[in-house]
Amino acid sequence: MVHADASNFEAGVSKAKAYEQILEQATALFDGQRNWVCNTANIASLLWHAFHSLPSPSCEVNWAGFYVLDKTVSKQLILGPFHGKVACQTIAFGRGVCGAAAQSGKTQLVPDVEQFPGHIACDDDSKSEIVVPIVKEGKVVAIIDIDCAVMQGFDEEDQQYLEKLAHLLAEACDW
Amino acid sequence: MVHADASNFEAGVSKAKAYEQILEQATALFDGQRNWVCNTANIASLLWHAFHSLPSPSCEVNWAGFYVLDKTVSKQLILGPFHGKVACQTIAFGRGVCGAAAQSGKTQLVPDVEQFPGHIACDDDSKSEIVVPIVKEGKVVAIIDIDCAVMQGFDEEDQQYLEKLAHLLAEACDW
Repeated sequence: MVHADASNFEAGVSKAKAYEQILEQATALFDGQRNWVCNTANIASLLWHAFHSLPSPSCEVNWAGFYVLDKTVSKQLILGPFHGKVACQTIAFGRGVCGAAAQSGKTQLVPDVEQFPGHIACDDDSKSEIVVPIVKEGKVVAIIDIDCAVMQGFDEEDQQYLEKLAHLLAEACDW
Repeated sequence: MVHADASNFEAGVSKAKAYEQILEQATALFDGQRNWVCNTANIASLLWHAFHSLPSPSCEVNWAGFYVLDKTVSKQLILGPFHGKVACQTIAFGRGVCGAAAQSGKTQLVPDVEQFPGHIACDDDSKSEIVVPIVKEGKVVAIIDIDCAVMQGFDEEDQQYLEKLAHLLAEACDW
């Protein structure tokens, strides 16, 4: 049975090890369960607890979650499961960091959100951000969005692991 | 625009005031947005931040979120958006506190989960629980589930306000 212990990360764990645990837990969680809401809800929890087990800047993550394609409005994302403060409900493709990832299909690694053209200041506390598209059969179906309350919260290691997670999610869920 | 400030609750706020703020914010959030995933994701955030702004036992809440009807399996709930540690993916009607609420259509206010027949120990830290069904046209479409790490975490005031919230959610979302 799924157990809350999956969200417990060892004290002093390295970022790589924490991500490896997320990928391992995700693979186990997705076995026999393809519902995207259920799966992204648990992954948002895993990401949140992993970041908060790590040293700064990772522990300064203040939002971790998902936006998915809005099936009622073309070229629009709509809020999915997350951990953090109340968030924007919809985001047009091309708007802000999330919209750029959705439109381009490419990860956006943003060390200082103030320098990003058209950044959406949903939470003034957010200083840096990484957004990784979830691409299924060449089409963006969702994005992983993570905000950090300090600048340069994310690096290439985050990008590498989050892209692995996005790939896993793309295949494991019915979007 | 929706702003993260909605999740900020004044220091020293009373439980009644915190719930009034949740209901007010929920009403504003649902205006023009009927997507249940988007709406429950933001409500889980509001609930989590409200509880953590209150004195004990409310601040000991360790899980706040939603299960919804699983459209692929009869008489089964499936995990929706939440804040807290990784959670059980599916729950059969009648099983544990959530299943009892789904089957009976009645709020389950459980001061000590160990005393509840068939309690699902997804997280050993959870000591008390309240589960409020979301009922649309006489049918349970989802439940609000909140766990607390101390016994007697919830009282009739929680029940009264969460039932108001459930009523609001029932009407405001397309389930």
